[in-house]
Amino acid sequence: MSNHPFSHGDDGYKFSQHIVADFSSNVWIGGPPPDLLLHLRGKLENIGSYPQLHAESLTEGYANFCKLHPSQVLTTNGTAEAIFLVAQYFANAHSTIVIPAFSEYEHACALFEHELGFVSINELTQMELCPPGLVWICQPNNPTGHCLSTERLESLILLNPQTVFVVDEAYAGLCDAHSSVDRLIGKVENLLILRSMTKYFSIPGLRLGYLVGSECLIEAISAFQPPWSVNTLALEAGHFLLRNNIEVDVASWLQSAIELRQSVENITAWKTQESSTAYFLVEANVSASFLKQWLIEKHGLLIRDASNFRGLGKNHFRICSQTQPKNHLLLKALEEFVSEHP
Amino acid sequence: MSNHPFSHGDDGYKFSQHIVADFSSNVWIGGPPPDLLLHLRGKLENIGSYPQLHAESLTEGYANFCKLHPSQVLTTNGTAEAIFLVAQYFANAHSTIVIPAFSEYEHACALFEHELGFVSINELTQMELCPPGLVWICQPNNPTGHCLSTERLESLILLNPQTVFVVDEAYAGLCDAHSSVDRLIGKVENLLILRSMTKYFSIPGLRLGYLVGSECLIEAISAFQPPWSVNTLALEAGHFLLRNNIEVDVASWLQSAIELRQSVENITAWKTQESSTAYFLVEANVSASFLKQWLIEKHGLLIRDASNFRGLGKNHFRICSQTQPKNHLLLKALEEFVSEHP
Repeated sequence: MSNHPFSHGDDGYKFSQHIVADFSSNVWIGGPPPDLLLHLRGKLENIGSYPQLHAESLTEGYANFCKLHPSQVLTTNGTAEAIFLVAQYFANAHSTIVIPAFSEYEHACALFEHELGFVSINELTQMELCPPGLVWICQPNNPTGHCLSTERLESLILLNPQTVFVVDEAYAGLCDAHSSVDRLIGKVENLLILRSMTKYFSIPGLRLGYLVGSECLIEAISAFQPPWSVNTLALEAGHFLLRNNIEVDVASWLQSAIELRQSVENITAWKTQESSTAYFLVEANVSASFLKQWLIEKHGLLIRDASNFRGLGKNHFRICSQTQPKNHLLLKALEEFVSEHP
Repeated sequence: MSNHPFSHGDDGYKFSQHIVADFSSNVWIGGPPPDLLLHLRGKLENIGSYPQLHAESLTEGYANFCKLHPSQVLTTNGTAEAIFLVAQYFANAHSTIVIPAFSEYEHACALFEHELGFVSINELTQMELCPPGLVWICQPNNPTGHCLSTERLESLILLNPQTVFVVDEAYAGLCDAHSSVDRLIGKVENLLILRSMTKYFSIPGLRLGYLVGSECLIEAISAFQPPWSVNTLALEAGHFLLRNNIEVDVASWLQSAIELRQSVENITAWKTQESSTAYFLVEANVSASFLKQWLIEKHGLLIRDASNFRGLGKNHFRICSQTQPKNHLLLKALEEFVSEHP
């Protein structure tokens, strides 16, 4: 199976094998909050009515939550829609993407004929002046799990008013160190923040994200959003999650990821990358596509072939820590793999 | 409350009053099929996984259902997304909209800077040659409920290969006479058909529509669709509805609409329009916005102020037949209204 430049993880449905454990997705491993599932069960009949035209009430809810005005918020059909809307509004602009990065930035920018540039995080922070147009940066980064300090990022934004920074904070809740750059909203005009409810609450199937930024940018970007874009149950879930203070045990998860990374390194002697979150990169001594296929066929274990991330090589794969028993299955499988492929 | 050119029905959430009955929406009055709700209840946990990137399996399901190839089908986040994607792909084209019409054609075309023309259905059928670019036509029409004969529409499509016909069949299941123009798919290159699961199955909250057309057009248009655009539960519902032969009692509904229309005309002496489906237009002797506000405030009854449909006047409103008791409430209210406003 080829690794298309814009293919993604959580792609178990493409395989005939039963997936025993999925290390390819980056969402919280505990599944959707049981209270949320219970709540949605009681709201299922609401699919009989149209959702609000532009998710007005939930937008207000997010605004209250972020201490912003509703005109600074756009509720979207997942973060993916927000990315496409931003790229669309800035059609033909220059876009600098901090790589490696979630491939949908490049996908969307290419579709809307941006002039593309790619820099590493080190190159970005060493720039005296950022290029005009857009800078896309994922904080913490997917796929590396690296995180630029908030102060450093804020100073870049403040020093470069000619550049609009699109900061993807989809994984913000899933690392210890991270804090948002959202305190700059209302103070600067050159900042858009992508937010997701998907990762922290493990609800990628519902499609629920939002975009925050200056009133002027949000108004212009939202013009491109089709009506009724966010479905009724996603709206119900958003309201429920804003009303209820549901927390997941991120600390234990991050600890398990550190242990998994060390064990992978010990067993395989492959190079792994330190990460601020629960997923991390590994560079194998074989191609990631070969390893992915082997793990699926022999053990039903799914990893993320990361070779299609611009800036990474064909041997890179990404894994996200799962439960202890599942992590153990992966470690045993990798042990078998390296003994078979020394 | 002003009637924005792209505002819509089913907007009860904008009012503080309790909505006793909603005549403003055009979906099947029986609510979502109970078996579907039961099925979705069992599938709620699937929101913990990403939906398929491009709804691949459901697209295949629709293709089988329509006896087409999956490359001739695009599954969308409601018909609204399909309309925006078509307008986007044909950015800057000439678009002729058959009016009065669902306002999102004009909304989307204006957004993507189409050169716009408007014709009545009579003007269209009398044309020797249609203008090049796109022709948008809703079959049966929303808001009028009128329906051009399939033969007449097919011959227009065949005689005008220079014009791409976008035929919105969202209400196709909800009238007696209608048959689809889909037998031309695969034979002509200038046809796109919009389909909706929303109206017949009363599931507007889920957001589920699809577009069929030539492989070449579908491939080009789908490039603009963000990944994961159709949510997991919409996909589940689509599969369930394709597997199960669920039928709703359209015949009784249409009969009730005929009776409602006659009663409205008898009570008010306002002009009503014959319709092939369960909704119809009425032209009052007062502004529709005044009547709408009066009905909401006095009786909690919601109608569709149709004055924002291009081609209609400020006194036009649309109602969709509901249950007998609800229809009775509307008739009593209209009786009161005309006695107060002779």
